Amino acid sequence: MTQPLDPVACAQELIRCESVTPADGGALDLLHDMLARLGFECTRLPFQDAGTDPVDNLYAERQGPAPNVCFAGHTDVVPAGDPEAWSVPPFAGALVDGQLIGRGAVDMKGAIAAWVAAVSRIPMQAGTLSLLITGDEEGPSVNGTRKVLRWLADRGIELGCCVVGEPTSGTRLGDTVKIGRRGSLNATIAVYGTQGHTAYPQHADNPLHRLAAALNALAHDPIDDGSEHFEPTRLQVTSVDVGNPATNVIPAYVTANLNVRFNDLWDSFAIERWIQDRLDRHCPRNSLAVRATGESFLSAPGPLSDALVGACEEVLGAKPELGTGGGTSDARFIKDACPVAELGLRNATAHQVDERTSVDDLYRLTDVYEAALKRLLETG
Amino acid sequence: MTQPLDPVACAQELIRCESVTPADGGALDLLHDMLARLGFECTRLPFQDAGTDPVDNLYAERQGPAPNVCFAGHTDVVPAGDPEAWSVPPFAGALVDGQLIGRGAVDMKGAIAAWVAAVSRIPMQAGTLSLLITGDEEGPSVNGTRKVLRWLADRGIELGCCVVGEPTSGTRLGDTVKIGRRGSLNATIAVYGTQGHTAYPQHADNPLHRLAAALNALAHDPIDDGSEHFEPTRLQVTSVDVGNPATNVIPAYVTANLNVRFNDLWDSFAIERWIQDRLDRHCPRNSLAVRATGESFLSAPGPLSDALVGACEEVLGAKPELGTGGGTSDARFIKDACPVAELGLRNATAHQVDERTSVDDLYRLTDVYEAALKRLLETG
Repeated sequence: MTQPLDPVACAQELIRCESVTPADGGALDLLHDMLARLGFECTRLPFQDAGTDPVDNLYAERQGPAPNVCFAGHTDVVPAGDPEAWSVPPFAGALVDGQLIGRGAVDMKGAIAAWVAAVSRIPMQAGTLSLLITGDEEGPSVNGTRKVLRWLADRGIELGCCVVGEPTSGTRLGDTVKIGRRGSLNATIAVYGTQGHTAYPQHADNPLHRLAAALNALAHDPIDDGSEHFEPTRLQVTSVDVGNPATNVIPAYVTANLNVRFNDLWDSFAIERWIQDRLDRHCPRNSLAVRATGESFLSAPGPLSDALVGACEEVLGAKPELGTGGGTSDARFIKDACPVAELGLRNATAHQVDERTSVDDLYRLTDVYEAALKRLLETG
Repeated sequence: MTQPLDPVACAQELIRCESVTPADGGALDLLHDMLARLGFECTRLPFQDAGTDPVDNLYAERQGPAPNVCFAGHTDVVPAGDPEAWSVPPFAGALVDGQLIGRGAVDMKGAIAAWVAAVSRIPMQAGTLSLLITGDEEGPSVNGTRKVLRWLADRGIELGCCVVGEPTSGTRLGDTVKIGRRGSLNATIAVYGTQGHTAYPQHADNPLHRLAAALNALAHDPIDDGSEHFEPTRLQVTSVDVGNPATNVIPAYVTANLNVRFNDLWDSFAIERWIQDRLDRHCPRNSLAVRATGESFLSAPGPLSDALVGACEEVLGAKPELGTGGGTSDARFIKDACPVAELGLRNATAHQVDERTSVDDLYRLTDVYEAALKRLLETG
């Protein structure tokens, strides 16, 4: 067995690779080398669809007894914005007062480093381990996890379960394990009427009056009461725009925008129908344009989430919640291949200036991952 | 008795005075001379409030037996817009194919000319006649009819009744006599909430959801069923504006504009309270800014409207409707001084390019005014 790796040094090295999506900045080469030294067989999987940037990916596997316990993560990061706004250079991997500060510190180079460090403590013979690392998670997510999963399926490589290292922790490390995500859908509504003079509304058809009735129903009709693991589906009207400066003119048409975060009782088609029904009831002439940015999914609780919950309790002394809140992640692709759950660092500074994690959290997450790996490999 | 005047020649002369509000263009001098030749004592009443343009007005009176039958009109006109868009120069008083075309042809130099021509057919001893002509009706209406009425009241001059020469006719001359007008009120609503992320609406307060409920009530709650002489009060939402480009942000505040045309069951204060009640019910944090541009009024049907209706029936062979529709006029000031009713030319081209009346309508309106004068002076 090789010398255990230090998760902080590893995270610093990863942050120093300027891998602003879709650039790689040497991050995958770095991981490739680390994992090869730990006995992993590494395969690079560059993909490029027409009209997209080329993206490199890495699948690393160390064979042992089944099942294959996978970790999925991404080395690409969002832009740093104005580097002058940061207290340290965003790609320096600086340590300041016990904090590792830099773009990707929590989302999610820190978690990758913690997992690799945890793996370095696990003997080769304990089981089959793999890492699925993409460079296309913060971008369009076209040439990343989805294509790697297809490549694995084509080769008959089965994953037993998968931990995703997204920053799921809220106020304290390990307070939340995510076992699914809500879906998200944006809609633009147009309602058409007949323009006219406000003094003679009988000759006009005010689209704002029709829209008011429709929006009242959309905003206030109950959608659902939530499900076992999900909050209720929520619809938010985000804008209504007419731009009519004349006080004596009834406008010809009006537009409104909506966003819906929906749980596992719905898919985006059902949500679209729910909206369309209410529009049609109040607005005979309407158009509805919908863009679903992610479907809802649940990876039912089981041995994987049990192992993560147990590891948190053992290492951190408190039991995490099983959650499904927040935005989307590549877990939405993985859930079709195997049980998936997400556990990572605190998300408070993700995508922000001075993105940071405490060094202490990095070491404790490494311990949690190690404990989880042991539970998962024993179960297997 | 002097030679009867020709209403068409008189209207042409008036149109040639370029009296775009607040300019006079010699229009009042012209009328002053005409009326003086018909035996009227003419008083010029220039007024100017601080911050407004100076405006000249004319009160002309020919004394005879009571009562004082007054005609109220305005010589100021709205701008012609692009003169190139007209088929003839807008201030030439051109006659083309039996049509008098020019700015003010129907609103309302044509009616003034018809009234003066009708008066020229009435003997001095028939009764007291007067004309109240302002140069501030199309403008702010501050230095015109309102101030002339105060001047009359200060001198103890009482009007028996008053005919206003606004273009009240719709599809044919004399189809409508107006005995009142609806009021008009503009309102701007602001609704305040708490900005937030659409994924976490529990931490926000969406002002658009509150506004949707308020607008639904404002647009669809019954206001009234109309009154004896008025249509139902109607509220129209004319604009809603948020301007939020982000699909994942709940806006902090939103605005909406309304226009209300209200009948004689309401005044603007009562309408404001009606709106405020509905706002308060749905939007705890709101502001409401109201601007009443005219109160509703009714000059109850009686001898004056009977005389105008009878004259139309006698001359034109059809009975006019008693109406209260459309916009506002100086009758709203006169109704506090004496019974008032409005009858004039067809309004289809008022304020438009190629504003026009048929020469035939001008002669027939002169006949109607003459017949009405005879009825009113007999009644007196």
